[in-house]
Amino acid sequence: MGLIVQKFGGSSVANTERLKNVARIITDTYQAGNDVVAVLSAQGDTTDDLLEKAAEINPRASKRELDMLLSTGEQQSISLCAMAIEALGFPVVSLCGWQVGMKTNRNYGDARITRIDRDRLESELGQHRIVLVAGFQGINRFDDITTLGRGGSDTSAVALAAVLHADRCQIYTDVDGVYTADPRLVPDAHKLDEITYDEMLELATLGAQVLHNRSVEMAKKYNVKLEVLSSFTGHTGTTVREVVKTMEKSHISGVAKDKNIARLALVGLSDQPGIAFKVFSLLAREKINVDIILQSIGRDDTKDISFTVARSDLARAKEHLEKRRDTLGFQRLEVNDHCAKVSIVGAGMINSPGVAATMFEALFDAGININMISTSEIKVSVLVDESQADRAVQVIHNQFFREFGQNR
Amino acid sequence: MGLIVQKFGGSSVANTERLKNVARIITDTYQAGNDVVAVLSAQGDTTDDLLEKAAEINPRASKRELDMLLSTGEQQSISLCAMAIEALGFPVVSLCGWQVGMKTNRNYGDARITRIDRDRLESELGQHRIVLVAGFQGINRFDDITTLGRGGSDTSAVALAAVLHADRCQIYTDVDGVYTADPRLVPDAHKLDEITYDEMLELATLGAQVLHNRSVEMAKKYNVKLEVLSSFTGHTGTTVREVVKTMEKSHISGVAKDKNIARLALVGLSDQPGIAFKVFSLLAREKINVDIILQSIGRDDTKDISFTVARSDLARAKEHLEKRRDTLGFQRLEVNDHCAKVSIVGAGMINSPGVAATMFEALFDAGININMISTSEIKVSVLVDESQADRAVQVIHNQFFREFGQNR
Repeated sequence: MGLIVQKFGGSSVANTERLKNVARIITDTYQAGNDVVAVLSAQGDTTDDLLEKAAEINPRASKRELDMLLSTGEQQSISLCAMAIEALGFPVVSLCGWQVGMKTNRNYGDARITRIDRDRLESELGQHRIVLVAGFQGINRFDDITTLGRGGSDTSAVALAAVLHADRCQIYTDVDGVYTADPRLVPDAHKLDEITYDEMLELATLGAQVLHNRSVEMAKKYNVKLEVLSSFTGHTGTTVREVVKTMEKSHISGVAKDKNIARLALVGLSDQPGIAFKVFSLLAREKINVDIILQSIGRDDTKDISFTVARSDLARAKEHLEKRRDTLGFQRLEVNDHCAKVSIVGAGMINSPGVAATMFEALFDAGININMISTSEIKVSVLVDESQADRAVQVIHNQFFREFGQNR
Repeated sequence: MGLIVQKFGGSSVANTERLKNVARIITDTYQAGNDVVAVLSAQGDTTDDLLEKAAEINPRASKRELDMLLSTGEQQSISLCAMAIEALGFPVVSLCGWQVGMKTNRNYGDARITRIDRDRLESELGQHRIVLVAGFQGINRFDDITTLGRGGSDTSAVALAAVLHADRCQIYTDVDGVYTADPRLVPDAHKLDEITYDEMLELATLGAQVLHNRSVEMAKKYNVKLEVLSSFTGHTGTTVREVVKTMEKSHISGVAKDKNIARLALVGLSDQPGIAFKVFSLLAREKINVDIILQSIGRDDTKDISFTVARSDLARAKEHLEKRRDTLGFQRLEVNDHCAKVSIVGAGMINSPGVAATMFEALFDAGININMISTSEIKVSVLVDESQADRAVQVIHNQFFREFGQNR
C-alpha cells in the first residue's frame, strides 16, 4: 500500500509482447492496492531510428527540432502501454512531459529538470487512475519540448518519485540488479541485495547498464528509495538507499572498471603558487571533468601534475593546455590513452583497515603495475594499463569475495 | 507579399526526398517575401501503421489514447521538415497543436476546433520564422491531445488561415486540382481554374481526393481563399473562392459520382400526420445522415417514403427501423445497396434553364434508368444502378463538355 513510481526502459517495452508484460507488472502493483505512476522509455531502437532519419535529412539539425522529433518515441510507448492496460480492464491515462508540467531549463538535448507541477498528476491519482508518463522529456519556459539526455527516463522517474513523495521508485530493466562485478568478466560475481547511494555512484561503470548517475544523485538528494528489478524474470533485484542494514558485515560492495579514461601529465612545471588552480580552472571553463589528480615533486625545483579525464575529452584538454603552454610554464605534456581505472567500492571501507592493502596485494600477486592511486571514504581507485584491466577486476574480486568468503 | 498558409498531405511528405521538396516549396514562398505557416500531415502510411500497432495491442483502445498515439505522426513530419528547412539555411520552428493553442472540443478522434490562440504564432512570425504546424491535432480543455478526424489537416490549415487572416490557403496534394469529372473515368475531363465553395461542397466525391468538406465549409464561412496545387508538378491548380470570375459563361462545373450510397424504402405507411418526422428524427438520433428523400402515394390510402443513406450506415438504419416497425406502422422495408448517385454541379445552373433536361436526355439516350431525382440550386442528382454509374458520368460529361463545347 502506498505510491510506487515504476520505470521501464527501452528493451522492456521493445515489442507488443513485452509491452503487455509491462502492463501486467503495472496492474499487478495497482491491484495490490498501490497508486502507480509508471515512466516509459521509447520502444527498443526507436530513438536511434529517429536519429538516423534526422541525420539523413540534416546532419546538423538543431537540438530544438531533434527534441521535438525524439520525444515522439516515448509518447508512442505510453499510449500503446495505456491501451494494453485498458485491455486488462484498469483505469489508466498516459501523459507527456508537458502535460505533467515537467519543467526544465532551456538546454535542448540535455535539459535539467527545474520543477514539476503536481496538479495534473494528483488529479489523475485522485481518480484512482494508473498514470503513465513519457520519460526523457520535459518542457522549457518557451513551451518547447526538451529532452533530458542520457539516462533521462531514470531521471524522470526519480524526479516524479521525489515530488510525489513516493514510497519507492522501481527501475525495471533487462538485468536483475547490481552485481559485485561485471558477470561477463567475473563469473563468481553475485547480485547485491542492498547498496547505498554513494556506493552506487562510485560503481557507475557497473551501474551504467542499470542506473544513470544523474538519477542516483537525485535519489540521494531527495532520499528516494530506489529498486533495480528485472522486467523479464521479476527477480527482486537491488535496493539503493541511504543506509544499508547489513553494512557492518561487508568490506566492499563491488569492483568496477572504467575504460573511458585518459591520463595527462604536465611535466616540469615551475613551482609558482596557484599553478594547480590555473590548470584546473582552465579545464573547468572548458567543461572538462577531471577525475584523479596527482601532484609530485619533479627535478630541479619543478613539479609534475598528472590527472585523468574522460577519453572523449582528451583531444580538447590537450589542445587547450598546449595553447597555454607559455602561461602555465610546463616543459612537456605527456598523454596516455591506454589506461583504465579499476575501483573497489564499499561504504564499510572507512572502518575496515587493510582494505586498500588487500587490493594492492592482489594486483601485486598478479604482476599488475599500478600507475596512479586515488582514495575516498568509500572507494579505492587505481590506474592500470588497459590490457590488464579485466584481469585486475578478476583478481581483486577473487581476493575479496572468494578467499575471504565475503557475502552479503 | 503577404501571409500564406500551406498544407502538405501525407503523400507529399512520404519520404526524405519528398520532405526536401516540400522544404523547397516552403522556402521559395518565404524567399518571395511572404510570411509562411505550413501545416503537415503524417508521412505516408504512418497513421495506418500506428493504428495497426494499436489494434494488435487492443482492438478496443480508447479514442483518447489513440489520439495520443496518432498525433506523433504529424509531430515527426514537422520536426523532420524543419530540419530540412534548417539545412537550406532558413529560420524555422515546428509547433504541435497544443503549442499553437489549437483548442478543440472534447470529442476524441473527431474533434471540432473551437478556438486558436494567436500569441505563439504571431510571436514566431514576428521573428520572421517559417512556422510549421502539426496538422490533424488539437488540445481540449483537459489539456489532452485530440485529433480532428478525416481531412483533419485540411481543416487545421483553413482554420489557421482564417484566424491569421491569411491572404491565401494553399492545399498541396498529389493531384493538381479539381476536374470536371474523374479523369480515370472521363479522359476528356479538364481541370477547373476556379470554383465556388458551394460547388466544391457539392463536388465532394471529386474533391474527396483533394479537399475535405469540413475544410471547404470552414473556408466558406471565414471567406478563406483556397488553392489546390500539386506538390509534384508545381502546376497552378484550382482556386476555390466565393464568387468565380467566369461564372456567367458556364452551365456546370463538373460531374460527380458517389457509390457510398444505399436506398431504403418504407412501403405502405399509414397516412398519419408527422410520420416523416418520426422516421427521420429516429435516424437523426442515431446520427445517420439522410440524403435524397422521396415521398409518394402508395395504394389503399398508404404512402411510401424512400431515402438514401451512406452505405456504411445501412445496417444500422435497417436495424433501428425494423425495431420500430409497430410504432411507425409500415408494411415492408425495401433495401437497395446496388445504387449510385450521379450529380452535375454548377453555380450557374439556377439561371440556365434546361440543364436538368440535358442531363436526363443524356441518360435516356444511353438507356440508363433513373431511380430517384434530387435537385438544389446548384446541383442535380440522380440515383442510378451502380453498374451503370461510370457510364452515366461519361455520357453526361460528354453531353455538357463536348457537344456544347463548354469550356471555362
